[in-house]
Amino acid sequence: MKVKPIFWVEGEVAILDQRLLPEKVVYIRCKRYQQVAQTIKNMAIRGAPAIGIAAAMGVALGVWKLKSARRLEERFQKICQTLTNTRPTAHNLFWAIERMKKRFYSHKNSSLPELKRYLQKEAENILEEDIATNRKIGENGKRLIKAGITVLTHCNAGALATGGYGTALGVLRAAWESGVRFKVIADETRPYLQGARLTAWELQQEGIPVTIITDSTAGYLMAQGKINLVIVGADRIAANGDTANKIGTYSLAILAKHHNIPFYVAAPFSTIDLNIANGQQIPIEKRPGKELAYLGKKCIYPQGVNALYYAFDVTPARYITGIITEKGVIEPPFKKAINRLSRRRQNG
Amino acid sequence: MKVKPIFWVEGEVAILDQRLLPEKVVYIRCKRYQQVAQTIKNMAIRGAPAIGIAAAMGVALGVWKLKSARRLEERFQKICQTLTNTRPTAHNLFWAIERMKKRFYSHKNSSLPELKRYLQKEAENILEEDIATNRKIGENGKRLIKAGITVLTHCNAGALATGGYGTALGVLRAAWESGVRFKVIADETRPYLQGARLTAWELQQEGIPVTIITDSTAGYLMAQGKINLVIVGADRIAANGDTANKIGTYSLAILAKHHNIPFYVAAPFSTIDLNIANGQQIPIEKRPGKELAYLGKKCIYPQGVNALYYAFDVTPARYITGIITEKGVIEPPFKKAINRLSRRRQNG
Repeated sequence: MKVKPIFWVEGEVAILDQRLLPEKVVYIRCKRYQQVAQTIKNMAIRGAPAIGIAAAMGVALGVWKLKSARRLEERFQKICQTLTNTRPTAHNLFWAIERMKKRFYSHKNSSLPELKRYLQKEAENILEEDIATNRKIGENGKRLIKAGITVLTHCNAGALATGGYGTALGVLRAAWESGVRFKVIADETRPYLQGARLTAWELQQEGIPVTIITDSTAGYLMAQGKINLVIVGADRIAANGDTANKIGTYSLAILAKHHNIPFYVAAPFSTIDLNIANGQQIPIEKRPGKELAYLGKKCIYPQGVNALYYAFDVTPARYITGIITEKGVIEPPFKKAINRLSRRRQNG
Repeated sequence: MKVKPIFWVEGEVAILDQRLLPEKVVYIRCKRYQQVAQTIKNMAIRGAPAIGIAAAMGVALGVWKLKSARRLEERFQKICQTLTNTRPTAHNLFWAIERMKKRFYSHKNSSLPELKRYLQKEAENILEEDIATNRKIGENGKRLIKAGITVLTHCNAGALATGGYGTALGVLRAAWESGVRFKVIADETRPYLQGARLTAWELQQEGIPVTIITDSTAGYLMAQGKINLVIVGADRIAANGDTANKIGTYSLAILAKHHNIPFYVAAPFSTIDLNIANGQQIPIEKRPGKELAYLGKKCIYPQGVNALYYAFDVTPARYITGIITEKGVIEPPFKKAINRLSRRRQNG
């Protein structure tokens, strides 16, 4: 993957506008943190880990542009608030902002130029660590991808959704790199077609055979025995394993269960929200219905008709075979396993 | 519904180009039967009952344009063959052509002008009967639509898919006309968006409240208890009740079963193929993958990527609560009930 979704350059944050891919590769050069917030809101950048990185870089950028340390804490809090208010579901966003806050408060007494460098470094660390985490997820998950199988994935949990490499697609990349040969079916993933535009495009570049289907085709392929495993990313995972991910994930999980097909979630541990007991407490973003009605500038629905757009859904843990993280593949009972691994993080 | 999907006018067949709806209302005036075949193939007209009518009118048009009775039977067979070869799944197409053949052979000894009028009349009868059948389906099914419920439908089984009025939407229309108030959720139905462009548009004109969702949203709404009943049309029903319908129907049926939501099919009895024991014998049309990749003239997939497009899928009878026909609502065991009703047809 040569295209980077986000990077820091000369006191600016460069964000690849994923809405234009694969037709056009255009970077939005954000000079102000509000612009970063805007790219998260309008989905120029998307994918839970990627928007976590973007939020961290936004916080760093906000402080970077301060000309004095006057009312520093108040202004810092405002920057964090603006970035927090962009999208409600992905946990990595809040996790990354919390981490930036921790860094800020542990260096509050440094000079402003020093503080700027600390925060910028922390945001870059989050980016670097995410790539390393993805590689670890890939290593941990690749044994699940057996030679000759066909894997279904939904939306894009690839390099573009993360710092690079990918979560669900990271697992596929790692398997492919170790010589295993398999096929991928990508749900096109309406309304934004991340599966067709981003996942198929990423896999095509790696030489991994990929076929796009409409979202409603998956069940019929399962019935014919043409899908052997499902792997998706995650936007937020509750402490019991319930998983919020792109709308349509829940249907796939039910269909996979019905056809006895293993259903895996791949995500960094930072996607797990330990403060939330179950999926019912995950806030699910509802976006304007008119976003469904437009494809680019073309209106594809009748004028004035209602449309309902949930960006995510929640898959109960009981339909999930395993959660692939950088700490290992978590298996049911998830609550106990997640609890154990989270304590390991605090201690280590 | 003021817009007619198809009608005979001045020795031509006028076919509404449904690919352009609701933006533009354009009729293709077919002067030759090959043009009628083309409109079926390229989906300018679609919906099992509607393409049955189109095929019948195509046969009538083919004979209408003959200048002599030379090699009449041979030329008639060629006309029928061309119309038979348009699309493989919908049974109504073959049923209608068989009916035209029967008419032809029972009047083979008439003069050519007389034969032309017989066949043209037969095609118009098929159209008129289809509308009457739809009304009967509506009457038979309307008791299933209770006040206050929310009904999910997929694709378009409305006036546009038939001679007029509709099958699944005919049931909704009949309920609405008798004063029952309810809401409809329409799957947008990729790739051709018949749900958004046609179903939502038809219902909007009737004043029936309708909300469009992406195809992958249905499961999540079911999980939230927001859908009380599913009703769809059918392209072919086997003698045991297994039903071919628009791709995505199978997934909906599995999801409905999982959530204990009744799942109904509405179709004229002519959709039932008594020669086919079960759904595995129904030929499922595979269309070119590139039809998925284009939305109008815009390519929405990466260049050169594979795409797989099944136009239909098969829902096993065990997931179907009932089949609403003009002869009554058929309930399991379907095989026995279908067999009984089909004998009633032959006798009556």
